[in-house]
This record gives sequence, C-alpha cells and structure tokens, in this order.
Amino acid sequence: MARIVMKFGGTSVANVDRIRNVARRVKAEVDRGNEVAVVVSAMSGETDRLVGFCREAATLYDAREYDTVVATGEQVTTGLLAIVLQSMGVPARSWLGWQLPVRTNDAHGSARIQDIDTGEVISRMLTGQVAVVAGFQGLGPDNRVTTLGRGGSDTSAVALAAALKADRCDIYTDVDGVYTTDPRIVPKARKLDKITYEEMLELASVGAKVLQTRSVELAMKEKVRVQVLSSFEDLPGTLVVDEDEIVEQELIAGVAYSRNEAKITLVGVPDRPGVVAAIFSPLADANVNVDMIVQNIAHDTKTTDVTFTVTRTDLPRALDTLEKHRAELGYEGLVSDAAVSKVSVVGVGMKSHAGVAQTMFKALADRGINIQVISTSEIKISVLIAEDYTELAVRALHSAYGLDAA
Amino acid sequence: MARIVMKFGGTSVANVDRIRNVARRVKAEVDRGNEVAVVVSAMSGETDRLVGFCREAATLYDAREYDTVVATGEQVTTGLLAIVLQSMGVPARSWLGWQLPVRTNDAHGSARIQDIDTGEVISRMLTGQVAVVAGFQGLGPDNRVTTLGRGGSDTSAVALAAALKADRCDIYTDVDGVYTTDPRIVPKARKLDKITYEEMLELASVGAKVLQTRSVELAMKEKVRVQVLSSFEDLPGTLVVDEDEIVEQELIAGVAYSRNEAKITLVGVPDRPGVVAAIFSPLADANVNVDMIVQNIAHDTKTTDVTFTVTRTDLPRALDTLEKHRAELGYEGLVSDAAVSKVSVVGVGMKSHAGVAQTMFKALADRGINIQVISTSEIKISVLIAEDYTELAVRALHSAYGLDAA
Repeated sequence: MARIVMKFGGTSVANVDRIRNVARRVKAEVDRGNEVAVVVSAMSGETDRLVGFCREAATLYDAREYDTVVATGEQVTTGLLAIVLQSMGVPARSWLGWQLPVRTNDAHGSARIQDIDTGEVISRMLTGQVAVVAGFQGLGPDNRVTTLGRGGSDTSAVALAAALKADRCDIYTDVDGVYTTDPRIVPKARKLDKITYEEMLELASVGAKVLQTRSVELAMKEKVRVQVLSSFEDLPGTLVVDEDEIVEQELIAGVAYSRNEAKITLVGVPDRPGVVAAIFSPLADANVNVDMIVQNIAHDTKTTDVTFTVTRTDLPRALDTLEKHRAELGYEGLVSDAAVSKVSVVGVGMKSHAGVAQTMFKALADRGINIQVISTSEIKISVLIAEDYTELAVRALHSAYGLDAA
Repeated sequence: MARIVMKFGGTSVANVDRIRNVARRVKAEVDRGNEVAVVVSAMSGETDRLVGFCREAATLYDAREYDTVVATGEQVTTGLLAIVLQSMGVPARSWLGWQLPVRTNDAHGSARIQDIDTGEVISRMLTGQVAVVAGFQGLGPDNRVTTLGRGGSDTSAVALAAALKADRCDIYTDVDGVYTTDPRIVPKARKLDKITYEEMLELASVGAKVLQTRSVELAMKEKVRVQVLSSFEDLPGTLVVDEDEIVEQELIAGVAYSRNEAKITLVGVPDRPGVVAAIFSPLADANVNVDMIVQNIAHDTKTTDVTFTVTRTDLPRALDTLEKHRAELGYEGLVSDAAVSKVSVVGVGMKSHAGVAQTMFKALADRGINIQVISTSEIKISVLIAEDYTELAVRALHSAYGLDAA
C-alpha cells in the first residue's frame, strides 16, 4: 500500500468524458489498495476564458479580484471529479484551497504555498476517501483566494505530496514522459526512465514544457518522487528522482530549445566600473528578465560592447527602456535581433566529465552553425544561434551525445 | 444618506459590457452619498451550463459537490464587478458566501440562510467601500459551499438588506416593475407604484415571475423595503411595502396566470374517513406538490370523486404514483387533463370588500368561460379553466376590476 498524489492537467479534464477517464485511473489506484489524493487543473481553455473576462473588465485589475475569478476553473473540475468518482462507487470529496486550507503568502496572482493543513484529509484518506484537491489556488493571509500563477497546479500537487508525505506524485499530462528532446524534431528521441531533479529543473528553465519550474524546485527541496506520465495511454512514465537513485548515469539527459529569445547589443558603451549594473537596473525595473550576458573585449581603452538576451515577448519593452535611458548610459548604438533561438544540453554527468562543451561546439561547427552567445551552469550548456538552424542544431547534438534510439 | 442593497440578476450581468452598465448604476448611488452593497447573480446561461456538467457527470449527484460547482457562477461576476467598479474609481471588493460568511443550514442545493456576519462589511462600507456580495451561495455548518436553490439571489439580497439594516433593497431585473398583469397579454396593464408584501407573495406563488417567493416571505418577516426596477432603463420601479404604507388601497392589485398546471380526477373513490389523506401521502412521498383540491359531492352513499391540480411537469410522476397505489386506494377511474391554466386575482382590498368573487365569476361567465376548480385565500381567488381561454380570461378580469390604464 502506498500514498499517492495524482495530478491531472487541463487537457486531461477538458470535458466530462475526459473527467470520467481520469476517474477510471484514480479508481485503478484505489483498487490497488493505495491511498489517493488527486489535484486537478481547470478544463483546458477555461482559465484563458476567465483571464479574458478580467482583461475585458479593466486593463489594470486588482490581483485579488483576478484570483477570485480565475480560481473558479479548478473549483468546477474538483466538484465534477468528486461526482464522477462517487458514481463509480469510490468515496470522494472535493477540497478547495480555502477549505484545507492551502496557506500561501499574499502575492496575489503568483502566490507561494507556505503550508498545507492535511490533518482532516489524512484522517479521511485512512478511511478510503479520495481527496480531490483544487490545484493552482490557496488562501492568503487576508482570508482571500490566491492563485499560484499559470501552470501552478504542478506546484500544488508537489506541495500536497510533500505535506502528505506521499510515496509518489504522479503528474498526468498529454505526453507520456520526459524525452531526450522534442520528438517532433528528432523522431529518434527516447523517453527517459529516470531523470534527476537538477536536470529536470534545467530542462524546464530552458524550454521543455513538461513541468513547471517551481514544482521541480519544490520536489527537489522536499525530496518528492515525481513521475511524469500520460493520462491517455497506460505506459510507464519518467521518474524525477535524486541523483543517487540513478545507477547508470548518462552524460547528457536531453537537448532542449527555446525560440522565445531575442538578442540586444549595446555598442560603444563607456568601459567603466558599474556600467553593466547601470544597464540592467532600469530593465529590472521594467520587469524585463535578462538571460545570457556577454561583455565583449573592449575595442579600445574607452568603450566596450554588451550583448544579452531577453524573451522575444519582452523585446519591445526592453528596447523602449534602453532608448529612454540612452543619455545616462551613453552607448553609441543599439542593435537587436529577434531571429535567434537558444539550444541547450543538460546532464548531471557533465560535472564529472571533461570535453562535453567541446563535443557541442564541434558538432555545431561541423554543420556550419555559428554560435553567437554561450552560457553555462554546472550541468547545462546553452548557445544562442540563428533561429533557422534550430532543428539542425538539435538533431546534430542529439546524435553527437549518442542519444538517438537504436 | 441611505444604506442600500442593490441586486442584479443574470441578464443584467450577462457579459462584461452589461457588468459595466451595472457598475455605472452602482456608482450613481455612491455619488449620491449612499452606502452600497451589491448582490449579483451568475451571468445568464452560466448556471445552466454548470448544472449541465453535473448532470452529465452523474444522474444522481452529491448535492455538496453540485453546490461547489454551481456557486462558481456568482464568484466570477462578483470579482468582475469589483474590477470594473475599481476602474471607475469606486472602492470595492468582492465577498464570497464563505468569506462574510453567509451561514446557512446544511440543506445543500436548497439551503436556508441562518445569519450573515456583516461586521467587517459594515466597517468597510462606512469608509466608502462598496461590498460586492455573491448571491445564491453560503457556508454550511460542514464548512462547505451551499446554494439556496434557483433564483436564490433575490433571497440573498433581502437577507443581506435585513442584516445590514438597509433602508432599501433594490432588485434590478429585465422588467421595470410589477404590473397589474402581463403586458404581453394586456397592453393596457399598468405598472404599480406600490404593492403589499402579501399581494407580492400571492402573485409570486401563482405565476408572476418577478421575485422569488422565498425572498418576499423574508422581506415581509424582516420588514425590508424592496423595490423592483429595470437595470436597463432609468425609471422608478415598484415598491413592495407594508400594507399600512399604501394610502389609496386598490381592490385588486393584479391578475396572474400560470400554464404549468394539470388536473387529475380520481373517479369513484370509496367515501370513508381518511381516504383523502391516503391519496395525498404517496404523492407527497414522490415529491409531487398538490395545489387546488376539490372533493365532489358523492354520487351515492359509497363513493365520491376527488379532483386536484399538480404542475404539468409533475403530471407523469403523479399518474405513475397513483397507478401504483390503485389497489390500496380502490378508485374506479383516473382522468387527467394537461390543457388547463390557473388564473388568479390578488389584492388585500378583498379582505374588506364583499362581491369580489362575484365580479370574477360574472366576468368569466359573460365570456362563456367555464370554471373547473376554485381555490381562495384571504387575498386571492384562483380558478382553473381550459388553457385556450387564458388570455381572454386575463383580459376580461383586468377590465372587470378597473385595472386598465386610461
């Protein structure tokens, strides 16, 4: 017997028929003798509809009211799933964020979970009742509804699994696991049986959309065993686990890419201490997130070029901010390019192996792909390249690291 | 300065544009220096959509889960109205049933309000903040969401007005007041400036759909001054008040009709004590509401005929129940007729005037309309007639009591 948290996303609960399919999966776990809590998202499209209402109501809206409106999507699916489970003879009840409660901080619209009161839920789970918990929502210190930000239901599920000391947190989604890369680009991509938290985190942050970054951080911190699997097929998924649980460590776990990138170069920036801080602080104030940064070697003794990337969505706001501060920053020219993409290789094996970067650079050079910017972490190397070369680069790297399926 | 509760139904908040219109009306009251609380329904069609989901999920569903699902409709409109009010510079916040809380009993799906905690709301209203309260919903003793039954938002508004000791409870709807009869049938129908609680209650119970019956009962009990008015036009509405507030009492306030009627006659029922109770107790068990009842004079010493009406919706269930109990009831025949309608005249003036019934019977007889069943209360006379004569009867009575506009 195990205690399991199962999480189903929007496409898995898109209508009542799909909710019935979810209920069958829940019943199967119950029939195996497991104690089960289920976390559900809103029906796919519903959150967009509700957000649309808020935007139509006002361009600037009170985040507390936004949360009140948007949290209803999950409230509907919890109630419906409880009804369907009961009709299949499985004892179940819905729990809203304020009912457990799932206590969060007061950052409405992007709240963080602080603690979950599970006393009542556990005592009911011990009697065989399935807890159907609304994802994405909580209760703020102001006694009002909070939401965790888009994709927050993954985080709800992991936090609940931690609070319940669950044996496993199964994240059901429309893909059947974590792949070595996007199978739409590389048909020979392989599904991974296991991946480490660190790798999953890096993959999530560089464009793989399987799990929300924050949920992986939380799983790592709380040592929650997460499994990613398909809600439509009955296949084993990918387990996200601690590094020492993986016996045969591969060098590289996966190749990820992101097209939501844009490059900005400030030409002829005065080369004096503090100038980089002077550039990035107005961008931070404008809520522009800066990712890769390169400061070129100065042409002469007085000026330098600074290149960095932002998301493509943020590019207009970034350019606008830099133009406004042109006088104080004193740069000579401003060049931007939105036709770029970021390709990354991720793997904990890199920590103990030399030559990983060299393999990447050589594979790209062999295909004539020019690297514009490089950034690295302990277990990740990312390069910025011209967008047209994205697929070619991903395929080349997938082969170069021996990830292609036999 | 007055304290006012304003209530807007589903058609008044059907989309964000209409919610903006509602907000303008609220702002106008605030600008007049009034303290305002607003009660809103779900967008029209939304409750039906949510109820549809529950029915699709299971034929028999847990009323607690139904309430969880269905209450989201009002949650969305409260949040949106608060956002729009704020964007117009009117301080406002939404209040859900569990937040005030609006405490109800545990009759999920048709709960009754027990008390409303208004301490926090009043202190905020005193600082000029508008309270936007979700209608139709409350918090049960089990700490779960309850709903009051269809049309329950009227009751929410009246209960809130009573708890706030409000000077007035304005019910905004798609008609501009209470009329002497349905203007679609009688173009000369007049809008009443005032009507008594008792009359409004009788009119609501015999087919006038302006206010939910329970909300009128509550207003009468708590002496809440209710006004019915249009949310689309800027016209005075109809005030529902105590009898002694009406100086020039008319004999008849209005003529109402209902087509949702059906007549059943049990022929040759053994004429012995207790037989009527024996007929109606299985119907009550089957949740069939019996309205008008006539026990005919016995043909002979041994048997009698019993005629009564039920709603047309309940007719198949009523017939089924009576067939099942045929042996124990021992009646000889069962006749039913769904092509009937009930026409009623209502007025507190009837209490002190003789001849009111006579005027009715004569007016109908003059048009050759046959009366099948009669039932009366202190301030109401209802007759059952063939459905085809409905409009003719309504017009005849409206004229006979001098209600036609000049």
